Amino acid sequence: MKTPFTTKEKLEEIIGEIPTPFHLYDEKGIRENAKAVYEAFSWNKGFREYFAVKANANPFLINILKECGCGTDCSSRTELMLSNSLGFSGDEIMFSSNDTPAEEFAYANEIGAIINLDDITHIKVLEDTIGHIPSTISCRYNPGGVYEISNGIMDNPGDAKYGMTKKQLFEAYQLLRDKGAKRFGLHAFLVSNTVTNDYYPALASTLFELIVELKEETGICINFVNLSGGVGIPYTPTGTPNDIRVIGEGVRKVYEELLVPAGLGDVSIYTEMGRFMMGPYGALVTTAIREKHTYKEYIGVDACAVNLMRPAMYGAYHHITVMGKENATCDHTYDVTGSLCENNDKFAVDRKLPKIDMGDVLFIHDTGAHGFAMGYNYNGKLKSAEVLLKEDGSFELIRRAETPKDYFATFDCFDIIKDLV
Amino acid sequence: MKTPFTTKEKLEEIIGEIPTPFHLYDEKGIRENAKAVYEAFSWNKGFREYFAVKANANPFLINILKECGCGTDCSSRTELMLSNSLGFSGDEIMFSSNDTPAEEFAYANEIGAIINLDDITHIKVLEDTIGHIPSTISCRYNPGGVYEISNGIMDNPGDAKYGMTKKQLFEAYQLLRDKGAKRFGLHAFLVSNTVTNDYYPALASTLFELIVELKEETGICINFVNLSGGVGIPYTPTGTPNDIRVIGEGVRKVYEELLVPAGLGDVSIYTEMGRFMMGPYGALVTTAIREKHTYKEYIGVDACAVNLMRPAMYGAYHHITVMGKENATCDHTYDVTGSLCENNDKFAVDRKLPKIDMGDVLFIHDTGAHGFAMGYNYNGKLKSAEVLLKEDGSFELIRRAETPKDYFATFDCFDIIKDLV
Repeated sequence: MKTPFTTKEKLEEIIGEIPTPFHLYDEKGIRENAKAVYEAFSWNKGFREYFAVKANANPFLINILKECGCGTDCSSRTELMLSNSLGFSGDEIMFSSNDTPAEEFAYANEIGAIINLDDITHIKVLEDTIGHIPSTISCRYNPGGVYEISNGIMDNPGDAKYGMTKKQLFEAYQLLRDKGAKRFGLHAFLVSNTVTNDYYPALASTLFELIVELKEETGICINFVNLSGGVGIPYTPTGTPNDIRVIGEGVRKVYEELLVPAGLGDVSIYTEMGRFMMGPYGALVTTAIREKHTYKEYIGVDACAVNLMRPAMYGAYHHITVMGKENATCDHTYDVTGSLCENNDKFAVDRKLPKIDMGDVLFIHDTGAHGFAMGYNYNGKLKSAEVLLKEDGSFELIRRAETPKDYFATFDCFDIIKDLV
Repeated sequence: MKTPFTTKEKLEEIIGEIPTPFHLYDEKGIRENAKAVYEAFSWNKGFREYFAVKANANPFLINILKECGCGTDCSSRTELMLSNSLGFSGDEIMFSSNDTPAEEFAYANEIGAIINLDDITHIKVLEDTIGHIPSTISCRYNPGGVYEISNGIMDNPGDAKYGMTKKQLFEAYQLLRDKGAKRFGLHAFLVSNTVTNDYYPALASTLFELIVELKEETGICINFVNLSGGVGIPYTPTGTPNDIRVIGEGVRKVYEELLVPAGLGDVSIYTEMGRFMMGPYGALVTTAIREKHTYKEYIGVDACAVNLMRPAMYGAYHHITVMGKENATCDHTYDVTGSLCENNDKFAVDRKLPKIDMGDVLFIHDTGAHGFAMGYNYNGKLKSAEVLLKEDGSFELIRRAETPKDYFATFDCFDIIKDLV
């Protein structure tokens, strides 16, 4: 069962000022969830969640997470710039990128971010670029093969472009130590969007065994283990959400089993969650504007894949609530479509919903992560506004909608289409 | 066999001024192809190609097609604005959209564009919006079911959100006539990216039979038949390109068989090709900047899915030429990756290529359509510049690259991140 985090009346009030479509975020939900994450890992002194900015780069939302104690996980220069502008200090910024341009290493170093190296060859690139190796440095591990957790949940790290082999990893740490690094991190991302409480503990176990072995073999002590992302959310209404307390407890258990006896009881645990921190606390609010009765029944809305690409790109399910019809029988079968000239621009296919009338407001759930952030401008469509539903029940615009002038901006240095830029 | 439309030396000259990645376009190829299209349909007095702006919205390129006699096919307000700014007159602009907002109907009408109605219910929306029905109007047809051409090529119009059933179509034309429309168009798009000379003739045959029947049944004479897009290009090096002369001749044959005897010998043929007009005449030029040797061999380039999304979204093949190594043996197997934290950000998977050295320039073919146009800003990555290789061999910047300021523009009305906007 999925219920919207707001009411039809509140949405009507917002729509009175800010036309649909827009993404709406739930400050209360974001704060409560972040608090639960910190509580779940409160047993670990150095714990920090580095919010994966790629999931949602809205500075107002990142500021809320900052107030909750989070840092940022950045994958590009603009994400680093954003973190820096918001006042995150060096070790509150993790730079976990791959296929990294030299200038991004330089900028990350300039603002003091922790650099997480995706590959052993990046050691030389980094040293050539900034002239030295930072005293704190992290490495990304890829165990290869297939990674299985439980209940058939698995992924294929061996096919993923990220990280180093174990041999490269051990070599990298020694090389980094020889070049003057003092504090070391280990990072791994093995399975995406898991909906199980077992993933982090299983991953932690893999990584903890590895750092014990590293210590025995090389004498190098890892200072922080970055479990990265992968803790997901259920997009369907029947899925059971992860319980972060159970997850935190599971990680504590293997920590005490494996690290404490090995004299590594002061290792900090870091996470880089995006989806879990923001996904359920965002929704795409859109209005039904057209209906078609051809070979199927279609409801056309004023949003499109430009606002939410996951259904088009991955065939992803996003639950839809028709506001004011929460308790009506779902006795109609609709394709809910956007306006792109692209047949995959459908928010739902053959979805059972209550009868939808023109003007009905649809609440598309779980768009807080990888929603706005994956927006494109295909068909010349413009990206929407973002709105924050605050804890006190009031609302605030936190990103203005794009205008045609934004869309044409990269022609502002030419004589062509002068009237549009 | 696919060969780049330029040389390593010319690319080095361009890269000296404009850093990679960028999209490069071949003016000569665009013009020659457009000329061939017009020659292939020169037997039809009213023929016009309306270039599908969604495929590539660069005004410099659209201006080239304008000089070749083309109009524009628009799917949104910004595409209409662009066409209007470039001086296209009303009947040179086709507005073929779906799930259309009322304000876009209003704007299309204001600039005199031909409106192509996707659904019968849009008649009322249009009339309610602009107060009348334009004298020239078009309707989009969807025959439903599965549409087969030849050699097993087919698609499922019955599952597509576009167009009207035959019954609705006939009803729509009569309603439009009753409301004062004088000139009528018929539009259909049934199969995407066909690489066969049979598609347009087969589609024309379907549509010509329909308009003969419409005339017999209602007395309404269709003035133009819009074959829309669907004429594709081979992305693989072994594919045989469509021969537009054969296609034009095939359409002429059914035109003379079906329309001329029915007294409909003055029907104009319109097309709305995007991919065929621009696809092969664009390339993504990118530099190899990183290599990884883990469980597979990876070459990281300075472009990513932000510059070309088709491989990530559709698993689409794009041929790659390593400049200067055109004749070298393809004895290495690489994944060619971009820098997104998204494992589908790969321009090629298990691709046989010559040995790639860091600094090598890669020419990714056939990005002229749905390349730049599908760009997003995921991971905070910025969109690239576009460059025109002119007929005289010189080159010209035709779109500047995005800057961080562009990326943060929709925060320019807030106090937050003031230093970035």
